[in-house]
Amino acid sequence: MLNDATPEIVNRFRGNLPEGVVREVAQRYLEEPRDRLTGRAGAVLAPATVEEVSAVLRLASEARVGVVPYGGGTGLVGGQLAPEGPVPLVLSLERMKAVRGIWPDEGVMTVEAGAILADVQRVAEEHDRLFPLSLASEGSARIGGLLGTNAGGVNVLRYGNARELCLGVEAVLADGRVMRGLKRLRKDNTGYDLRNLLIGSEGTLGVVTAASLRLFPRPESRAAAVLVVESPEAALRLLGQAQAVAGPALSAFELIAGQGPRFLAEHMPQVRLPFAEIPEWCVLIELGCSAGQDADALMEALFAEAYEAGLVRDGVVAASEAQRAELWAMRESLPEGNRKVGSILSNDISLPLSAVPEFIARAGEAIGKAGDFRINCFGHMGDGNLHYNVFPVAGKARGDYPADTSDRLKELVNQLLAELEGSFSAEHGLGRAKVEDLVRWGDPVRIEMMRAIKKTLDPLGILNPGAIFRIE
Amino acid sequence: MLNDATPEIVNRFRGNLPEGVVREVAQRYLEEPRDRLTGRAGAVLAPATVEEVSAVLRLASEARVGVVPYGGGTGLVGGQLAPEGPVPLVLSLERMKAVRGIWPDEGVMTVEAGAILADVQRVAEEHDRLFPLSLASEGSARIGGLLGTNAGGVNVLRYGNARELCLGVEAVLADGRVMRGLKRLRKDNTGYDLRNLLIGSEGTLGVVTAASLRLFPRPESRAAAVLVVESPEAALRLLGQAQAVAGPALSAFELIAGQGPRFLAEHMPQVRLPFAEIPEWCVLIELGCSAGQDADALMEALFAEAYEAGLVRDGVVAASEAQRAELWAMRESLPEGNRKVGSILSNDISLPLSAVPEFIARAGEAIGKAGDFRINCFGHMGDGNLHYNVFPVAGKARGDYPADTSDRLKELVNQLLAELEGSFSAEHGLGRAKVEDLVRWGDPVRIEMMRAIKKTLDPLGILNPGAIFRIE
Repeated sequence: MLNDATPEIVNRFRGNLPEGVVREVAQRYLEEPRDRLTGRAGAVLAPATVEEVSAVLRLASEARVGVVPYGGGTGLVGGQLAPEGPVPLVLSLERMKAVRGIWPDEGVMTVEAGAILADVQRVAEEHDRLFPLSLASEGSARIGGLLGTNAGGVNVLRYGNARELCLGVEAVLADGRVMRGLKRLRKDNTGYDLRNLLIGSEGTLGVVTAASLRLFPRPESRAAAVLVVESPEAALRLLGQAQAVAGPALSAFELIAGQGPRFLAEHMPQVRLPFAEIPEWCVLIELGCSAGQDADALMEALFAEAYEAGLVRDGVVAASEAQRAELWAMRESLPEGNRKVGSILSNDISLPLSAVPEFIARAGEAIGKAGDFRINCFGHMGDGNLHYNVFPVAGKARGDYPADTSDRLKELVNQLLAELEGSFSAEHGLGRAKVEDLVRWGDPVRIEMMRAIKKTLDPLGILNPGAIFRIE
Repeated sequence: MLNDATPEIVNRFRGNLPEGVVREVAQRYLEEPRDRLTGRAGAVLAPATVEEVSAVLRLASEARVGVVPYGGGTGLVGGQLAPEGPVPLVLSLERMKAVRGIWPDEGVMTVEAGAILADVQRVAEEHDRLFPLSLASEGSARIGGLLGTNAGGVNVLRYGNARELCLGVEAVLADGRVMRGLKRLRKDNTGYDLRNLLIGSEGTLGVVTAASLRLFPRPESRAAAVLVVESPEAALRLLGQAQAVAGPALSAFELIAGQGPRFLAEHMPQVRLPFAEIPEWCVLIELGCSAGQDADALMEALFAEAYEAGLVRDGVVAASEAQRAELWAMRESLPEGNRKVGSILSNDISLPLSAVPEFIARAGEAIGKAGDFRINCFGHMGDGNLHYNVFPVAGKARGDYPADTSDRLKELVNQLLAELEGSFSAEHGLGRAKVEDLVRWGDPVRIEMMRAIKKTLDPLGILNPGAIFRIE
């Protein structure tokens, strides 16, 4: 059992660490974007070097206090704060944000874990390169947290998840040992894949302090369009056609149900919608072309072919960079629109691609039978990843429904996911919100393996206690 | 300490397993392509189902005998045979080669571990899809071994290593437990990345019995060319230009030193060379284009631009599919040519891309100072992966050099790799040949983590004893 991070223990840290590392607990370290969980912390520790991170974790092991690694605080499953168990310390990487090196010709950049995603994108761009990881919270999210959760976002279809964008990591283990793995190699088969074990472990196996990231040539031309489709089935067929026509130039394929734009029209009228009448289903497509191709011409060919095949009924092809940005602003505003309405249940799920239409049909039917709700289903269809959220009907609020509504709906959704071989966590991770889902729906042997690895790498259980696994 | 797989123990397996599983040890299970190591085995076990693999490993745990997982036997570092330690059993996956499912529209195929790579490629092609993993031994190598070693090959530049081509695995652990992870999802953040931990673990953590593999649209057009360059430096600049011009259409970029074709001319005259005079350096480039592009036109544009920039002095662009195959046949014959000459030292190494020319220059210089040798340096330059092999001078044989020559040269190469932040194992793995290299050159904390994971997942040490780690 861990100890509370009492004032006495915090004082011990203060006495053993350089000035400026041990800090008061500002409120923001105890909050998360959805306001569902409230954290606690004895202190915030903000080390400036990997040696200081190592010292922090050695001290925490000695004192047997939990340590919650903290990036940008944008996680949606509570991985960054601890509402339960002994009071921990928060370990913020915010002071470690240096670019340690950039090799544009190699397509590699080494940055510290506290670097903010938007800054990393900017540095890459200054060197005429693209760092393709992109998501709504990129102005706050930090590299360490993005790797800790194996973040996804809108460009996974072409460039992969955070995992695929990382060539190497430097990380500090629970006892303070430093794993030096900042290789910038495309191929390195020298034993177990510890990099990928740390990536996505949500700070429970080690604290990533720096990473070598992959950079790509910037597309020479880009095009975006919102195309109206009849159904998720038609969207899936359009995806196949887009892949055939555009190949790897297809960088995003986002499904948007009409409910999302309707929420925006009602609650965020400042967001411009690209249609006179909101369609029941549409997709946002982006193409990024290299020198030999013309993105606009490719998009028009795609549109024409899809229209002829009866897959697309209508559409808006962005005619300028400003219009392209506008289409994306609509897409990126959907989560905020949802928050303004207030969901009863939000899901970050994935499915085998061909099962996406069936899931949407059957989940909608099951939820319809369960009561009166509104569903907003949108997400990265190219990756089989849906954000499938359930809301009160117009005029009602969350509190107007029985207290167990959320659990009942979640059970419906997860049952269906299990049947269709999907996943109850696609890109956000487990954090603390989905600990019980793992126990309920995960493969038992996989869970045993995870527990064994956790126990051997963090025998005291000080790293992010309560995330991924229950506090015991 | 493990027990020998004695006839008594083998009999116990025979009594507890279905007929046909326990087999005599044919000679081929004890040999490897380079004839440097000779294996031993009490029996070959060839289970036909995952349940039988599970039964085999339960029995092996009870009997405390080692089990060496065996795929196609094409590994180049001795991961598939055991020359030392207690006599083990060989576990061959050869009877498990079913295609469990294929979803061409999703780009997914689930196959058993014993499926041969060329067969998997063919099935994908029959469904108008590409499985891009491709290497010289694809006619024999099996999926389980390719994943166990995280195999590379010629298309990594565009499609990634075996790891990136796998969405999920089913595997049996040392004690017979079955991990069911055959998901066919693009995104699945439900805990630790056990898939990638098993991939590349060379059968020391579990036995992969099936995998979900990624399929891609087949290129609509392809083009290949051999271009003559002045130096590795020029080749590197050409790579940058090719990436800028062709973007993701660039699927292979292979560096070839003149020594390789000279060996072919001497020892394999049946292999057609694409030049009148063998150049000191050339590169083999392949483009694979989707519908919107014309591969031939793109290749010509690339050639013209590179010629104008002074990067390319001469070249042969394949004018037909037959000529394209001929260029690749030359490339794929290089390892066989090497074997006919008989190397003193062969290396499978990787470097940060920008360090490749420096490595080639400095390694050549150091080896030149160490004695009279011939160097054949070729490989996947697009991945920073070189096969850097050292041979006797003409008229001499390996035996004409002092016995410690190979070790001395290896030391030179590995020193330089360490200095340039490269890797001593890029795509072949560690097997048994590089166990000491890991101890000598690996990050100590990384090795400790690997040992801890090995111990917790295979506490008796029965899985592939002697691979990756020394027998203790």
